[in-house]
Amino acid sequence: MPATTRAAVLRAHGEPLVIEELPLPGECAPGAAVVEVTCATLCATDVHLWSGAMSFPGMLPLVLGHEMVGRVVAHGEDTRDALGRPIKVGDRIGWSESTCGHCHGCTVLREPVACANRGYGFMQRADAWPYATGGLAEHAYVAATSQKLLLPDDVADTWAAASGCAVKTVVHAFERAGGLRPGANVVIQGAGGLGLVATALATAAGAGVVITVGAPAARLDLATRFGADVTIGLSGEPADRVAEVMAATDGRGADLVLDMAGAPGVAAEAVDMAAWGGKYVVVGTTGPRPDPVPLGTVMGKQLAVLGSLNGDISDYHRAIEFLREFRSFFAWDELFSEPVGLAGASDALAAMSRLEQVKAVVQPGLS
Amino acid sequence: MPATTRAAVLRAHGEPLVIEELPLPGECAPGAAVVEVTCATLCATDVHLWSGAMSFPGMLPLVLGHEMVGRVVAHGEDTRDALGRPIKVGDRIGWSESTCGHCHGCTVLREPVACANRGYGFMQRADAWPYATGGLAEHAYVAATSQKLLLPDDVADTWAAASGCAVKTVVHAFERAGGLRPGANVVIQGAGGLGLVATALATAAGAGVVITVGAPAARLDLATRFGADVTIGLSGEPADRVAEVMAATDGRGADLVLDMAGAPGVAAEAVDMAAWGGKYVVVGTTGPRPDPVPLGTVMGKQLAVLGSLNGDISDYHRAIEFLREFRSFFAWDELFSEPVGLAGASDALAAMSRLEQVKAVVQPGLS
Amino acid sequence: MPATTRAAVLRAHGEPLVIEELPLPGECAPGAAVVEVTCATLCATDVHLWSGAMSFPGMLPLVLGHEMVGRVVAHGEDTRDALGRPIKVGDRIGWSESTCGHCHGCTVLREPVACANRGYGFMQRADAWPYATGGLAEHAYVAATSQKLLLPDDVADTWAAASGCAVKTVVHAFERAGGLRPGANVVIQGAGGLGLVATALATAAGAGVVITVGAPAARLDLATRFGADVTIGLSGEPADRVAEVMAATDGRGADLVLDMAGAPGVAAEAVDMAAWGGKYVVVGTTGPRPDPVPLGTVMGKQLAVLGSLNGDISDYHRAIEFLREFRSFFAWDELFSEPVGLAGASDALAAMSRLEQVKAVVQPGLS
Amino acid sequence: MPATTRAAVLRAHGEPLVIEELPLPGECAPGAAVVEVTCATLCATDVHLWSGAMSFPGMLPLVLGHEMVGRVVAHGEDTRDALGRPIKVGDRIGWSESTCGHCHGCTVLREPVACANRGYGFMQRADAWPYATGGLAEHAYVAATSQKLLLPDDVADTWAAASGCAVKTVVHAFERAGGLRPGANVVIQGAGGLGLVATALATAAGAGVVITVGAPAARLDLATRFGADVTIGLSGEPADRVAEVMAATDGRGADLVLDMAGAPGVAAEAVDMAAWGGKYVVVGTTGPRPDPVPLGTVMGKQLAVLGSLNGDISDYHRAIEFLREFRSFFAWDELFSEPVGLAGASDALAAMSRLEQVKAVVQPGLS
Ligand SMILES: [Zn+2]
Ligand SMILES: [Zn+2]
Ligand SMILES: [Zn+2]
Ligand SMILES: [Zn+2]
Ligand SMILES: [Zn+2]
Ligand SMILES: [Zn+2]
Ligand SMILES: [Zn+2]
Ligand SMILES: [Zn+2]
Repeated sequence: MPATTRAAVLRAHGEPLVIEELPLPGECAPGAAVVEVTCATLCATDVHLWSGAMSFPGMLPLVLGHEMVGRVVAHGEDTRDALGRPIKVGDRIGWSESTCGHCHGCTVLREPVACANRGYGFMQRADAWPYATGGLAEHAYVAATSQKLLLPDDVADTWAAASGCAVKTVVHAFERAGGLRPGANVVIQGAGGLGLVATALATAAGAGVVITVGAPAARLDLATRFGADVTIGLSGEPADRVAEVMAATDGRGADLVLDMAGAPGVAAEAVDMAAWGGKYVVVGTTGPRPDPVPLGTVMGKQLAVLGSLNGDISDYHRAIEFLREFRSFFAWDELFSEPVGLAGASDALAAMSRLEQVKAVVQPGLS
Repeated sequence: MPATTRAAVLRAHGEPLVIEELPLPGECAPGAAVVEVTCATLCATDVHLWSGAMSFPGMLPLVLGHEMVGRVVAHGEDTRDALGRPIKVGDRIGWSESTCGHCHGCTVLREPVACANRGYGFMQRADAWPYATGGLAEHAYVAATSQKLLLPDDVADTWAAASGCAVKTVVHAFERAGGLRPGANVVIQGAGGLGLVATALATAAGAGVVITVGAPAARLDLATRFGADVTIGLSGEPADRVAEVMAATDGRGADLVLDMAGAPGVAAEAVDMAAWGGKYVVVGTTGPRPDPVPLGTVMGKQLAVLGSLNGDISDYHRAIEFLREFRSFFAWDELFSEPVGLAGASDALAAMSRLEQVKAVVQPGLS
Repeated sequence: MPATTRAAVLRAHGEPLVIEELPLPGECAPGAAVVEVTCATLCATDVHLWSGAMSFPGMLPLVLGHEMVGRVVAHGEDTRDALGRPIKVGDRIGWSESTCGHCHGCTVLREPVACANRGYGFMQRADAWPYATGGLAEHAYVAATSQKLLLPDDVADTWAAASGCAVKTVVHAFERAGGLRPGANVVIQGAGGLGLVATALATAAGAGVVITVGAPAARLDLATRFGADVTIGLSGEPADRVAEVMAATDGRGADLVLDMAGAPGVAAEAVDMAAWGGKYVVVGTTGPRPDPVPLGTVMGKQLAVLGSLNGDISDYHRAIEFLREFRSFFAWDELFSEPVGLAGASDALAAMSRLEQVKAVVQPGLS
Repeated sequence: MPATTRAAVLRAHGEPLVIEELPLPGECAPGAAVVEVTCATLCATDVHLWSGAMSFPGMLPLVLGHEMVGRVVAHGEDTRDALGRPIKVGDRIGWSESTCGHCHGCTVLREPVACANRGYGFMQRADAWPYATGGLAEHAYVAATSQKLLLPDDVADTWAAASGCAVKTVVHAFERAGGLRPGANVVIQGAGGLGLVATALATAAGAGVVITVGAPAARLDLATRFGADVTIGLSGEPADRVAEVMAATDGRGADLVLDMAGAPGVAAEAVDMAAWGGKYVVVGTTGPRPDPVPLGTVMGKQLAVLGSLNGDISDYHRAIEFLREFRSFFAWDELFSEPVGLAGASDALAAMSRLEQVKAVVQPGLS
C-alpha cells in the first residue's frame, strides 16, 4: 500500500482544485480496502459542492467524487464484497456509501439510505483520517462499512462509476414506483445524467410513450437516442408542456412522472402531467424550501407522490446488472465526455456547470 | 309512490333553506328506487355548499344532503343491492354516488371514484328530473346507477347515514394507506367528523400512539374518548405541534398522517410530523390553489403522499361492517346532534358552521 | 339485423362440429349489439370443451369460440364501449365475458373476474336465447353486460381475437405478479399460446434471463424468436430442468415463474425454480385435484404463490395497447395458422389437440 | 466474565439433558457480549430438536433454547444495540439470530432471514467455540453478528424471551400478509404458542371474525380469552371445519388464513377456508415433503399463498413494541408455565411434547 496519494483537493468553493499529496491510512482495517482509482465520473452534486451551491460548515478541504471504480491494491482481513465473495489484490470493485448497521434505519427499517450515520465522500475532510475517500485521487480508502461489489468485465469503468450514484438513483426511483407496467406512459423531468438514464430504463422496461422534458436541445436529441418518443423543451409555459404530455397520451397523462430535475416549480407540472391514479417520484428536489404542490389535484386524481433517495448497494447491484443486460441497447458511452487527468478536473466541473458535458470523466492516473 | 315530496331547498347561498313541495319521477326505472328518507346527516361539504364557500355555476336550486338512509316505498324492475340481493318495498337502504360503468375510470381503472360521469346529489338541480335526490327531503329518488346496500339492523340510522360520506371517506383513506400495522403511530389532522372517525378507526386497528390535532377543546375531548392518546390544539405554532408529535413518538414521528382538516398549511406540518418512510394521506384538501410542501423532506424521508377521495360502494360496505364490528367500542352517538325536522335544517347548518355540532341530524319526517 | 346465422355447433364431444342455421335475437337490448364475426381464434379451452376433457352437465349444444372480433351490424340504445365511446354500425369491436355489476365480486372486490354471475360463451347453449354468442358463427350477439372495446386499426383481427382470452390472461398474470423489474429473471412454463405471449411480454418488459419450458421443439424455436434466452424441453427429469434454470440464473433461480402449462407436477418444479423471495403465478392449472407443492420450500424461500384468472376488460384494453406498442417487436403472426371457414373448424381443433397449431384461426365468412 | 457456565446439554435425542459446566470464550469480540440468562422459554422447535424429530448430522452436543433474555455481564468494544444505543454491563437485552451482512440475502434482498450464513443456536455445538449460545445455560455468549435490543422495563422476561422466536414469527407473518384491514376475517390454524399469539394480534389489529382451529380444548379456551370469536376443534372432518368457517363469515371465508400448525393436510383446508382474493400465510410447515394443495382453487379464487419465516431484529423490535402497547389487553402470562431451573428443563420439554404446557419457562439461575 502506498503511503500517500495524489489528489485534487477542493480548498475553496468556486476555486480550481489543488493537486496535492494526501496521506493514506497505513493499514486496512478488517473488511476495508485501498484501491487505485481507475475512473471517476462527476455528477451534479459534485458541481454544486464545487461551486458552493451546496455547502456544509467545516466540510473543506475535501476530495470530490463519489462515483468511481478502483482496482484493489491492499485490503484488510476478511474483506468481502456484498455477495460474500472474497476481495483480492487486483480485483476491480465499486462500492456504496458507508452505513453503520446498528441504527433504526439500518435494522428496523432495513433501509441503508435511512442510516443515521450514513457516510458520504463529502462528509470526509481530506485532512482527517482516512484522508482519501473521494474519487478525484489516485488512491482511495474504502471503509469496511461501505458495501463493495466485484465488477463484471462487460461493464465499462465509466458505466460502473456512474452506477455509484446516477444509475443506482434511477434504479432506486423505479423501485420506489413499484416498477413499470409494459405500455405505461412515462414523463421524465430532466435531461441530465439522471434524466437520460431514466429515459433508457423506462424504454427498456417496456414503457408506452416515453416523454423527456429538459434542455438544451443536444440533450433532448440524446434522450431520443435513449428511447424518448417525445421530447419537450423548456422554452414554453408550464401549461404548454402539460398540454404536450396530454396530447401524447390520449389525454390521460402519464402513469409515472419522475422528477430528475429538481428545479423549482416542476412539482406542479408533474402533478398536472400525471394520469388519474398515477405516481410522481420526487428524486431531484433539493433544498429546504417548500415547493407549491396542487394537493387538490393530488387528491382528485388519487396520485401518489413518492420521495426517493439515491439508493444502496442493492440498487448498485441492480444498476450493474441492468447495464450488463442492456449494454447493447443504448449508446451508453454518449453520456460520458473524454477522460481527463486530475489536472483537468476543475475544467471538467466548470464545463458541467455550463451544461456542456453530461458526465465528465476523470482518470486520476492520466498525466 | 307519492307524486311529490316536501323538501328543504337551497335557493340562494347563505340564505335559509326554503321548504317546498317538489315533484317526484312518476315511475322507477329498472334498478332504481324511491325511498322515504328516515335520516340525513350533514357534512362539511353541505355547510360549504350552503354558505357558498363551495359553488358551481347553475347549481341552484338544490336539495342538500348526501349522507342519508331511507326506506323503500317503490322500486323498478330487478332492483338489487350491491351484493345482488333483491330490494323490496319496506327495505332499509343506503347508497352511493352514481357511476356510469362505461368510462376509463369505471372499466380500466376499476375505480368508481374516478368515474368521468360520477353523479353527486349536488350535481342535481331540484327543478330538473329526477328532482329529489338529496337527503333534506321526505322522499328521494335513488338512480339505477347508484349502488345500493341493504342495511343491517344493528347499525343505527345516523351511523348508516354518516357512512354515506364521512365514514366511508375515512375507510377509503386507510385503504389508500395500505392499512395500518399494529403499533404504528398515527397523526390525524382535524377533529371534525372525519377526524374523529379516523381516530376511532386507527384505535380499532391497533395503532400505537394516536394523536389528534384540532379544535375546539370539546372535540379534542371527544377524540380522547374515541381513542386518542394525545390531542394537540391549534393555538401554538406549527413547530410546537411537530415537536409534540415527536415527543409522543420517541422522536421518530408518525408512520401515518391523515389530513382530515384541509386547512391551508397543514401539508407542511404533516410532512414534518411523518416518520422516515411514513405515509401522508391527503383527504381534506379542497380548492385549486397549490399548497407549500417541503418536497426536500418528502425525498429525504422517502415519504409517500397519497391523495384519497371519498370512496365507493365497497368503502360504504366496509364502513357499515366496521361500525357493526366496533359498535360497542366507541360512543358513536356522541358524533351526532339531536335530530331536527326539515324546518330545523337551516339552523343546523349554521350551528355546524360555528363548529357547535360535529354532525347535525335531520329526520325529514319530524314535524 | 339478420334473423338467423350460420354456426358450427358442438352437439357431441369429440365429434365434428355441425354447421347449422341458428336463430338470432330479433332485437338488441339497450347496450347490446349484434356483430358479424370477422375472425375467431381458438384456445386450449376450446379444444378441451370439444374433446370433452372439460365438460359441464347440460352444456350442449354449444357454439364454441370465446376469442373473436366482429363488425357491428346492429346495436341497442346507448350502446357504448368500455371507454364511453358510442358504438355504431360498422364499428370493429372486441368484448369480454359478461358480468352482473351487482354482486360482492363486482362491487366490493371490484374484480369482474370474481363476478358470481360471470357469463362465458360456453355457459350459453345454442338452443336458448340469445342462441349465438360464440365465435364459430357468422354473427354473434354481444350482451349489454359484456364490456366492449372499439379496436384500433393497427391491431390485426387475429391479434385482437386472441386478446379476448390468451393475451389478456398473460397481461393479467403479470399484473397479479405486480409487474416485472427490469433485469428480473423469468421462467415461463408452457410453450403454447399463453407461454409464447408471456415470453414476448417478459422480453418487452425488460426481463433479464427469459427461460421458456415446453414442447415440441418447433414451439421452443418460436419462443426463442419471441425473446427466450433459454429454452428447456420436457424430455429430461424435473431435477434437470431445475438445474438448467439455476445454471442460467447464477444459481439464484427465477424472480418470477409463470405456470402457463397446467400439467400435473409443474408446481413442484416451479417452486424449486424460484429464487428466494420470488413469485410463482398459477395460471394454467385446471381441475379440482390437489397438486403436490413443497410448502416447506415456499416458506423457506418466502415465495408468493399467486392464483391468476383470465382477466377482465381492463386487461383486454391493456392487451390491445400492448400489442399496438410492440407490434413490430415480435412476429405475432407466427402464432396463428392459416384461416379456415366454419367448415374447417373441426379439423383445426383436431390439429390443435395434436399440438400442430398454436392458435387456429377461423373466419366464419370464408366459404 | 466467568470462565465457565452451567448448562443443560443435549447429548442424545430423547434422553434427559445433562447438566454440565461448559467453557465460555475468554473475551468478548468487538460488538459481542456475555449475558447471564435470566429467562428462557421453549418453543416447538426445541421439542423437535430434543426428541430428534428435527435433527442435523453432527449437531450434538448442543445447548437448546433460542428464546431467552439476559443481563449483560461483559461486552466487547463498541457493543451497541440495533438502535445504536451503547450496551453496558447490567443492561437487559434480547437478541436475534446472527447474520453475516455480506451475502446476497443480507445486501441485495435486504432480508436477514435470507442470510446464507444465518446462525441459530442449534447450529452451534456445545464443544466448539463459543460453546454456550443457547438459552438453557446460566451464561450465554451473544455474537457481534447477532442484533441486540435493550429491553423496556414494562415487558416481562417471559414475554421478551418468547419474542425471540414465537412472537416475532407471528409479527413477521402479519407483515408478510401486508397487515390486516379492520374488520377482515381471520382463521388461525393452530392453538399452540404461535397460534395463540396470532389470535391476540389479529384481535388487536381490529379483525372482524377471528377463528382459531386447534386442540386441545384448554388451548381453545385460552384462544377465546385471546380474542377468538369462534374456535374449532380437530375432531371433525376437514369439510366440517371449512363449513364452520363459512358459516361464521357470511359464506365468504377468511380474508387471511395463517398456518401456525404445520400439520400435514392443513394446506388444503386453508385454501378452502379462504375468501376470494384472500391470503394464506404458510408459517408452520416444516419438512421437505410436498403437501397437496388445490391449485385450481388458488387460481379460481385468486389467492395468494405466502411463505413466511421467523423474522429478524425488525420483527423482534416490533414484537416488543406490540407487547408493550397491548400489555394490558391480553393475559399474556397464561401462555407461560411456572418457571423451573436447568434441572427441570427435561421434564418441561416432555410436558410440552404432551401438549400439557404451551410455553415452558426455564430460569437457569433457579436451583
Ligand atoms: Zn445505520
Ligand atoms: Zn451523485
Ligand atoms: Zn364511469
Ligand atoms: Zn360529505
Ligand atoms: Zn357480478
Ligand atoms: Zn381461452
Ligand atoms: Zn448474510
Ligand atoms: Zn422457535
